[in-house]
Amino acid sequence: MGRRMANPYLKQYLMTAGPTPLPPRVSQVMAEPILYHRAPAFIEVYARCLERLRMVFQTQNDVLCFAASGTGGMESAVANLVRPGEPVAVASCGKFGERWKEICEAFGAPVVHHDAGWGNRVEPADLDRVLGENPDVQVVFTTFSETSTGVLNDIQALAQAAHAHDALIAVDAVSAIGAVPLLQDEWGIDVVAAGSQKALMCPPGLGFASANERALARAAEPGGAARYYLDWGHTAAGQRKDPPDSPFTPAVSLFMALDVALDMIEKEGLEHVFERHRLLGRASREAVKALDLELFGPEDENANVVTAMKTPEGIDGAKVPKTMRDKFGITIAGGQNQLKGKIARIAHCGYYGAFDTVTTVAALEMTLRELGADVELGAGVAAAQRVFLEAGVPVPA
Amino acid sequence: MGRRMANPYLKQYLMTAGPTPLPPRVSQVMAEPILYHRAPAFIEVYARCLERLRMVFQTQNDVLCFAASGTGGMESAVANLVRPGEPVAVASCGKFGERWKEICEAFGAPVVHHDAGWGNRVEPADLDRVLGENPDVQVVFTTFSETSTGVLNDIQALAQAAHAHDALIAVDAVSAIGAVPLLQDEWGIDVVAAGSQKALMCPPGLGFASANERALARAAEPGGAARYYLDWGHTAAGQRKDPPDSPFTPAVSLFMALDVALDMIEKEGLEHVFERHRLLGRASREAVKALDLELFGPEDENANVVTAMKTPEGIDGAKVPKTMRDKFGITIAGGQNQLKGKIARIAHCGYYGAFDTVTTVAALEMTLRELGADVELGAGVAAAQRVFLEAGVPVPA
Repeated sequence: MGRRMANPYLKQYLMTAGPTPLPPRVSQVMAEPILYHRAPAFIEVYARCLERLRMVFQTQNDVLCFAASGTGGMESAVANLVRPGEPVAVASCGKFGERWKEICEAFGAPVVHHDAGWGNRVEPADLDRVLGENPDVQVVFTTFSETSTGVLNDIQALAQAAHAHDALIAVDAVSAIGAVPLLQDEWGIDVVAAGSQKALMCPPGLGFASANERALARAAEPGGAARYYLDWGHTAAGQRKDPPDSPFTPAVSLFMALDVALDMIEKEGLEHVFERHRLLGRASREAVKALDLELFGPEDENANVVTAMKTPEGIDGAKVPKTMRDKFGITIAGGQNQLKGKIARIAHCGYYGAFDTVTTVAALEMTLRELGADVELGAGVAAAQRVFLEAGVPVPA
Repeated sequence: MGRRMANPYLKQYLMTAGPTPLPPRVSQVMAEPILYHRAPAFIEVYARCLERLRMVFQTQNDVLCFAASGTGGMESAVANLVRPGEPVAVASCGKFGERWKEICEAFGAPVVHHDAGWGNRVEPADLDRVLGENPDVQVVFTTFSETSTGVLNDIQALAQAAHAHDALIAVDAVSAIGAVPLLQDEWGIDVVAAGSQKALMCPPGLGFASANERALARAAEPGGAARYYLDWGHTAAGQRKDPPDSPFTPAVSLFMALDVALDMIEKEGLEHVFERHRLLGRASREAVKALDLELFGPEDENANVVTAMKTPEGIDGAKVPKTMRDKFGITIAGGQNQLKGKIARIAHCGYYGAFDTVTTVAALEMTLRELGADVELGAGVAAAQRVFLEAGVPVPA
């Protein structure tokens, strides 16, 4: 297939928004002997994860867990909330928002699609207008952090708009959970879907759905879509048993990893975790600006999951991630779909510290220079350094 | 919740039919740095897994991979093959066969259910009769190794019966794959569903579906059930790209594990893997008989996934697995549903050798003695030893 092995002597840095690098403790627990899912040793792990997920989601809900990618968590929201033939609304601003539309259509729901455009925010006033024009919509699907563009939506305001029209709101928080504040209960978000492989510092393979009583009640009504594996009722019944029991064999090794990762988040403190992400986001944006590059999307001090920048005119943008990876061992993401070759995305959601950002910015400068762009070596790095120094040493990372 | 930590000084042995113990090489690869799923280093792993899965399934099909438990693999077969309102047949003989019925009903298919009874085999003649009586059935769902009872069905003959009535057959091979011979293409099995956590020696979290062209063609026709995450078309399209690409973030660490496990299976040689399972099954059955215990289900020299035995009269059967675990550190499974407290199940699917069986039989003897049953210590062990010695030393394990 013409692929070549990566150079084993090139030290590798993973700077993508999922999978994200794992803390050594998380990696290593997966090398321990596997546990039987009904034995006390695993049940301890499982129960502790279920409890700590509530802390991260800031909710009293049961955070339902599925052996699935984040899309499985999203699909569970669709499968449990839509009713074939009844319209729903999707408010999107990128690739992952559009995924909601694809899933809803696959489940037979006509979609009222508000497309805010890639790189824009979904404006709550627009959602309000769309729902005013479509009074039969009972469920809204939208995105918290749109990973394809780096944009963060104001889901608290979007939830208010949905509720003003008596609609439920389901939010894709796959890349946001654990990176930026999400107060599910306080903000009244009916459903939060998420995944394990981003700021939760675990491998991919666990999908989550935290659904409130109103959403669970709708799911339990007749007339819903077909589902079994992703049925909220099955999984909620299992998780509410004492001791909790997964209806299907849980992804044991991933729960072992999650247990350690959630312990780390708890010990760092959720507020400190968010503050660290704020600093990494700010340092990345300042570096981009110091290099005279253009941020993609609105400059937003809350958008601290992934920083997207336009690749400079005059160079082949698709070569930026490729050169960074092949020459410097730094894996970042380029643009997806219509943004292919036009943007580069640096992630800072998860197990990242100040010097991950410094390293990535340094490699970005070297890459752009290699590709013929006129950038001042060190200028971006210096901007990032200033952000970290101003925040005080030691850097909370 | 009143649970207590397992005694850390009691050496633990996992003898359940999933999760099964992992070879050290498989465990340890998961402690390596996580890979970006679109980077060359992961694509190598992914492509190799896809190719080697064909070897294990003995097929030219693409073995479709999902981040899901084995039930997700099964559900993909239902979601892609049933048409709401059109009848299907389920031929079951235990808990996992009945799961097919639950999933089919959840997807809106009226189920013609042939229940052969827990502990019996599904007889091909019975399936033939049922399909003769229900000529509008186009899909049959059944089980290869019924983990709840240890029974192995003759899926080659069941496939012939289904095909005689022009029906497709989908087989749950979750616990059989890699333990007993399954020649998907030669036997004409239209769909094989499986999971990672049994004889494939990996953690739970990967579900598989190997569908032949006829099954894929049916799935592609209009009128099918709603699905997105488990849609065969999506996943097949991704896996057939060059290089292959998963439509959703794959469970990277589990593929890293699978890559190592499949390498071990390839190096041991599939026929040797099956021969090892045959010996372990025979040794387990001979031990049970030597202890004057009764096998549950027909004595079957091909049923080498899990050995089920009736717990002796006069003792509390539910205490057998509990005592083995709490006093001796050996985790086996008891009976499920109506068999709770009535049977004990010793697994030998996966990374098991002769002395795992010896250890388990020894602990079983000690457990039964502790619970007041009249067993001769060492009698079961000796029977197992004889099986291994007769097969020649070194034991192929």
